[in-house]
Amino acid sequence: MTQISEARQGRLTAEMLRVSEAERVAPEAVRDAVARGHLTICCNRRRAALGLPQPVCGIGRGLRTKVNANIGTSADYPDLDAELAKLHVAVEAGADAVMDLSTGGDLRSIRQKVLEQSPVVVGTVPIYEAAVRAAREHGGIRHMTAESILSAVRQHAEQGVDFLTLHCGVTLAALEVLRQSPRVAGIVSRGGSFLATWMRYHRQENPLYEQFDEILAICSEYDVAISLGDGLRPGCQADSLDRAQVHELSTLAELATRALEAGVQIIVEGPGHVPLNQVETQVRLQKEMCKGAPFYVLGPLVTDVTPGYDHIAAAIGGAVAAAAGVDFICYVTPAEHLCLPDVEHVREGVIAARIAGHAADIVKGVPGAAEWDLEFSRARKALDWEKMFRLALDPRKARELREKRRGAGGDVCSMCAEFCALRILEREEQAQGGCADAREAH
Amino acid sequence: MTQISEARQGRLTAEMLRVSEAERVAPEAVRDAVARGHLTICCNRRRAALGLPQPVCGIGRGLRTKVNANIGTSADYPDLDAELAKLHVAVEAGADAVMDLSTGGDLRSIRQKVLEQSPVVVGTVPIYEAAVRAAREHGGIRHMTAESILSAVRQHAEQGVDFLTLHCGVTLAALEVLRQSPRVAGIVSRGGSFLATWMRYHRQENPLYEQFDEILAICSEYDVAISLGDGLRPGCQADSLDRAQVHELSTLAELATRALEAGVQIIVEGPGHVPLNQVETQVRLQKEMCKGAPFYVLGPLVTDVTPGYDHIAAAIGGAVAAAAGVDFICYVTPAEHLCLPDVEHVREGVIAARIAGHAADIVKGVPGAAEWDLEFSRARKALDWEKMFRLALDPRKARELREKRRGAGGDVCSMCAEFCALRILEREEQAQGGCADAREAH
Repeated sequence: MTQISEARQGRLTAEMLRVSEAERVAPEAVRDAVARGHLTICCNRRRAALGLPQPVCGIGRGLRTKVNANIGTSADYPDLDAELAKLHVAVEAGADAVMDLSTGGDLRSIRQKVLEQSPVVVGTVPIYEAAVRAAREHGGIRHMTAESILSAVRQHAEQGVDFLTLHCGVTLAALEVLRQSPRVAGIVSRGGSFLATWMRYHRQENPLYEQFDEILAICSEYDVAISLGDGLRPGCQADSLDRAQVHELSTLAELATRALEAGVQIIVEGPGHVPLNQVETQVRLQKEMCKGAPFYVLGPLVTDVTPGYDHIAAAIGGAVAAAAGVDFICYVTPAEHLCLPDVEHVREGVIAARIAGHAADIVKGVPGAAEWDLEFSRARKALDWEKMFRLALDPRKARELREKRRGAGGDVCSMCAEFCALRILEREEQAQGGCADAREAH
Repeated sequence: MTQISEARQGRLTAEMLRVSEAERVAPEAVRDAVARGHLTICCNRRRAALGLPQPVCGIGRGLRTKVNANIGTSADYPDLDAELAKLHVAVEAGADAVMDLSTGGDLRSIRQKVLEQSPVVVGTVPIYEAAVRAAREHGGIRHMTAESILSAVRQHAEQGVDFLTLHCGVTLAALEVLRQSPRVAGIVSRGGSFLATWMRYHRQENPLYEQFDEILAICSEYDVAISLGDGLRPGCQADSLDRAQVHELSTLAELATRALEAGVQIIVEGPGHVPLNQVETQVRLQKEMCKGAPFYVLGPLVTDVTPGYDHIAAAIGGAVAAAAGVDFICYVTPAEHLCLPDVEHVREGVIAARIAGHAADIVKGVPGAAEWDLEFSRARKALDWEKMFRLALDPRKARELREKRRGAGGDVCSMCAEFCALRILEREEQAQGGCADAREAH
C-alpha cells in the first residue's frame, strides 16, 4: 500500500496525520490532495525496517513551500566528512530535504551515512551512480546498460531513499527536437547529459522511459516518490521555454499520469534559467499539463551573469515561481557554476531559498506565514531585540550583526542611533500627556 | 533653463546627449521623455562652477534600471573616512548614485567630501540636517523651524547635490488618516518621523508641502531633481497599501504635476515592505497616479523576518518592481534594521540591487541587457572562464570562488569535475566522426 492507494481508499495514514499537524491543514484535506496527486509525502516505507530515522515531508498544494539542499562529493572533493558537515549545516539552516548528489568516493557508503544521519528526507539521482560506475569500472559512460541503470534505481529505493530524480523525459524524440532547434547552452543537466550521451551512442531509447513500468513497480514497493527530472531544462535565459524543454515536459506529464494510476507519488522538476516574465508561465504550464502535480524548481535564475551570487538570482525566480504555485525549491548556492560548495555556501543557499519560499507562503496564504511577519513586525516596532532574534529567519546572523556594530547601545540600532524613527515617535507619544504644556512653554 | 524647459523647447542638452549615448537610446527619445517628465537627468547645474566632478544619471522609462547606495555617518559611527571608503566600494560595485544620509559628525563637510570624491551623482535628505542641528543646538527636533528646513534645502542645492529627498507628502491630513487607521509599524521613515514629530508638536503644516513653490524656485535655479519622499511608506507587510500610504502618494502625485509645470525634474519614492503579490500593484498605482514619473523604491522587502539578509528580500521585491516599471532601486544591505553597514555590507547591497535591476532590464527590453546574458552563456557553454569572469556582474567574486576551490583544474569546475554536463556532451560531439566505428567495436 502506498500513500496514494491508502488515500484513495479513504484511509488516513500516520504520515498524513504528521503532515496535517506540521502544516496546520485538516487531515481530510491532506488525504484528498494525496489521492489526487496534488500532494506528495516523501517517506520511504522501508526506513523503519532499515533502522533509519523516519522523517516525513509533505510537498504540494496548500502546504508550506519546501526547500531542498543538494550535497554530495565530486571527484575533486570526495571527502565524506565534508558532506556530512554540509548535511548538518543545511538542516540547521532550515532545509526540509537534502539530495545526495555524490559522484566522488564510495557512493553507496556515502549515501548510507547521509541516510543514517539526516533528520530530513533524502533524495538521490540513481543515474549518477550508474554513470560513475560505468566510467570507473568500464572506462566510459557509454558502458552503462539498461540493467545497470534500473539496478541503481532499485538499490537506492531499497536503501531507504525517499525520492529519486529520474530523467525519464530525455527520449530519442526529445533529442531529435533538440537537434532540430539548437540551443545556446545545450544540455546542462548532469543526468540529462549522461543519458543523452548513452542514447546517442547506442541509438537506443532512454531505459528510464522505456522501462517506466518496472520503475513504477520498484517505487510502489517502498512508496518511493519519483521526482520526474528535467534533463532538458534551459541552462540560460535564451533557452527558456524552447521546443526541447516543452517536449520533455509533455513526456513528464504523460508519465505523471501513469505514475498516479499505479499509485506512485510524483514530483515534477522544472528549470533552471528563466527570464523573470516567463517564470509564472513556466509554473502555469507545468501545473496545467501535469494536472496539479507538485512542482520542484532549481532556481529559476532570472539572469545568467551572476556567478558568485546565483543564490540571489535564484531567490528572485524562486519567490515568483513559488508565489505562482511552485511547491518545492531546490536551493542554489553562491558557488553554483563555479565550484563544489563549502559549508558556508550551503548555509547561504538554504537561507536564500527559504526567503524565497517564505515570501511566497505569505501570499499563498499558507497557515502561519503572514502571522510570522506580523508578530515579528510588532517586536520590531517595540524594539524588542530578543524577540526579533528569536523570530528571525536566521537568529544567529541577526544577533551577530547587531552585536558586532552595536554602537552606543540602548534599544535603538547604530544606523540611526538617537534619530531612530520608531524611537522618536514613541518618545513623543509617551510625552503626549504633557505635550500641550510643553508647547506653551516653548 | 532646466533640462525640462530645454527639452520642451526642442533643444538637446549636453546631458541629454550623454544619457543617449550611455543608454543606446535615440537623443530625440531622451528629449521627449524629459519633456514629459518620464525621464529625469540628475545633474546639478552648479557642479562646474563649484569645481566638482560632473556625472550625469538618467533615470526613467526606456533606460537601464539604476541603483542607489546609501552611505553616511550616524552618531554611533561619525567617521568620515569610513563613509568615503563606502562611497568608493559602492561605485566600484556598480552603484549609479549615492545618497549621503549622514546624521553624525560635521554634516556639511562630510557632504562636501562626498561631492568632491563621488564619480556618480549624489542625493541627500536636507531634513536630516535641519533635525540634527535642531537637536544638537537647541535640544530637540521640535526646535526646527520652517526657515531652518528651507535653509537646509537651499544649502544642499547650492553645494551641488543632484537630487534631494523631500518628504512633502507628510501633511496634517495624512497624519490624521494615519491616526484614524493605525498601523503595525507606524512611521518608519526617518525624515517622515522628524516631520511628524515637529508637526504634531506645533500643530502646523509640513513646510515642505506648504512652501513647495519656494522649493521649486530653489530646485529650478540649479536644476536639482526633487525625489518626492514617502515618509509614510509601509514598514511591514501588514501596512502595505494602507490608507496613509495611498493618501501620501496622492499628494506626491499633485506635487509631481506642480513640479513639472515649474520645469523641475522629479522622482517619486515608494516602499518599503510589500507582500510579493502587491508589488506590481504598487508600481502601477504610482505610475498611473504620477503620470509616468520615474519611480524610486527602497526594496521593496517581500518579508519582514529576514534581518541579516534583507538585501535578498529586497532583491526579490526590487526585481519584480523594476520589471513592472520601477526605474531606480535604492539598495538594502544585509545590515538593514540591525546596524550601520560596513564596506562589505555596502558591496553586497549594491550587487544584490544590481541583480534585481538587471533581471528586470532583460524583460524590460533595455538595450544590451538580454545580449549580455546571451554573450555570457555562450562563454559558459564554451567553458571560457576568462570571458565569463570578464562578463560576470562581479568579476572579482566569480574568479575568487573558482580559484579557491578549483579542484584538479582543467576547464571544468569542481562541482561536477570529470562529469561536467557541458564537457561530456562536447567530448561526445568531438568524437562523433569516429562514433559509428567505436560503436561497432563495443
